[in-house]
Amino acid sequence: MTDETLPAIGSIGVVGAGAWGTALALAAARAGRSVTLWARDPETVAAIATRCENPRHLAGIPLDPPLAATTDLAAACAADAIILATPAQTTRTVAASLAPFVRRGTPVVLAAKGFEAGTRLLLADVLTEALPAAVPAALSGPSFAADVARGLPTAVTIAARDGALADRLAAALASPSFRPYASDDLVGVEIGGALKNVLAIASGVVVGRGLGASAQAALTARAFAELQRFAAALGGRPETLTGLSGLGDLLLTASSRQSRNFSFGIALGEGRRPHLDDPGAPLVEGAATAPVAAAIAAEHHVEVPIVAAVAALIAGRIDVAAAIEGLMARPLKRETA
Amino acid sequence: MTDETLPAIGSIGVVGAGAWGTALALAAARAGRSVTLWARDPETVAAIATRCENPRHLAGIPLDPPLAATTDLAAACAADAIILATPAQTTRTVAASLAPFVRRGTPVVLAAKGFEAGTRLLLADVLTEALPAAVPAALSGPSFAADVARGLPTAVTIAARDGALADRLAAALASPSFRPYASDDLVGVEIGGALKNVLAIASGVVVGRGLGASAQAALTARAFAELQRFAAALGGRPETLTGLSGLGDLLLTASSRQSRNFSFGIALGEGRRPHLDDPGAPLVEGAATAPVAAAIAAEHHVEVPIVAAVAALIAGRIDVAAAIEGLMARPLKRETA
Repeated sequence: MTDETLPAIGSIGVVGAGAWGTALALAAARAGRSVTLWARDPETVAAIATRCENPRHLAGIPLDPPLAATTDLAAACAADAIILATPAQTTRTVAASLAPFVRRGTPVVLAAKGFEAGTRLLLADVLTEALPAAVPAALSGPSFAADVARGLPTAVTIAARDGALADRLAAALASPSFRPYASDDLVGVEIGGALKNVLAIASGVVVGRGLGASAQAALTARAFAELQRFAAALGGRPETLTGLSGLGDLLLTASSRQSRNFSFGIALGEGRRPHLDDPGAPLVEGAATAPVAAAIAAEHHVEVPIVAAVAALIAGRIDVAAAIEGLMARPLKRETA
Repeated sequence: MTDETLPAIGSIGVVGAGAWGTALALAAARAGRSVTLWARDPETVAAIATRCENPRHLAGIPLDPPLAATTDLAAACAADAIILATPAQTTRTVAASLAPFVRRGTPVVLAAKGFEAGTRLLLADVLTEALPAAVPAALSGPSFAADVARGLPTAVTIAARDGALADRLAAALASPSFRPYASDDLVGVEIGGALKNVLAIASGVVVGRGLGASAQAALTARAFAELQRFAAALGGRPETLTGLSGLGDLLLTASSRQSRNFSFGIALGEGRRPHLDDPGAPLVEGAATAPVAAAIAAEHHVEVPIVAAVAALIAGRIDVAAAIEGLMARPLKRETA
């Protein structure tokens, strides 16, 4: 499947040694790549190197095969391709810090999902602004870092605007337990990843409120329809949203307590108000994405009742009862009207 | 939304007092309809009448409001509309037994899902053959009988070939806790209902085999794509499959141990072989549907690797390991290829 005229990707640098970055570094190593994992924190680097563990983010999961970790950005950026696995809202800053080290034309695979809060840009566009030497790509799909790290079977989508590059990246990361499918619909894949976190919060609210599995399934089906509408308005292809990075990821994120967005929604549904800004509070990307996505939808005249209800609930403009009304109640009308 | 030129549906007969028939009778009563619930078994009729309980199928759930139950088919068939809530493979026999009592033009709402095993017909077509006086409709969506009976919020689709009839039926059953959405895509709704049971077995196999939540989500996304392909080949509309009766129902059935199909799949995945034909064994509609759906797909040249794997596994032609390979493993290729 790879384009034989282009060199195969032999080495991969991973920037960011959180749970997801570490898991992706393991996946790349299992695929036979030479991997360099960059972490800001020397203690994490030392633990990865000497104990084969990432105690802060994947405690108790042995890193097998062992990973080469470093605090030297230049070392990670010397690879044939780079995976950027830092929080969505730090993308611009981190990408700019890579600029001195990245060769022109290097593929940079975004592992985070979302829109940048101030500019409302998708992360590939942020990357292009902050690191013009990079060729943006995105990796997304139903996958928990712990499952990937343990080697449980996982399938994801890797997208780039150039399908041949997506093929090469997919081949570089493929192993029996980790199956990347290539796509040339970068926008569709990015939108699926960004919105599913918001929609997972909504699903959590319904569960936290105790409305039952039937209501949760009905909400998720509507959430998927909303995701397709939103993506279509921004140029994503419907079949991308039906795939792993759209529906597949939505299903996982909107149903598992391993998902921080879903768990955050459950807390809201139970009437608690978790503090998002506490130091040490888990990163809930959907909470940051919700108001941005609602604003983008309004600009494009897309109806997004679920995203709007989540944004209003997080902003404190409505309470849980009113949010539930917005999530579940619609006038009796034709389903496809 | 209802067509003002047609009379509203005031009374509803429900044929079949299993869990689902009883729950739908309750939903109709809560919507203000005059309801007559037919049961074959006099003891069930007596328990419903005197104890407001259906001890065989919804033990411990009080029937509120109380229901009028009868063993007299003529009484149930005198209503403005009939809900047929008997197992899929009994549809022809039961429909024929209603023939003496049903007035021409009476809407008959199918609550069961599947294809008839011998003829490979959808149930609406079986109904038309066995009870030509009836106007077929179908009710489907993410809903467990116990949730509906308890009054937890549920949304379903009601379909008839004539959208105005679907509107009238939806209005007749609507209450704050039970929201039917009308559709004129009867084929699409029936196919969603039939196939989701088969796909739920596949999801159960993956879970029973211990492959993790990521693999389950990936499989479910593929199952949905397979469902859309299959339905499109038979004339169902894609947006119907994205709705409550397609994706919504698939999500619920393929993720909850309340689903007998999913639980059956889990047992298979764990290496057990539950006996489907034991007296008292729970009805696993997907096991009967799988080979029929695989045959229909072959006739229509639709690729259905998941349905085919389930059919082969149930028939004993492959083992669980081979089935998993069929469910999860595909060559590295473009996702939308």
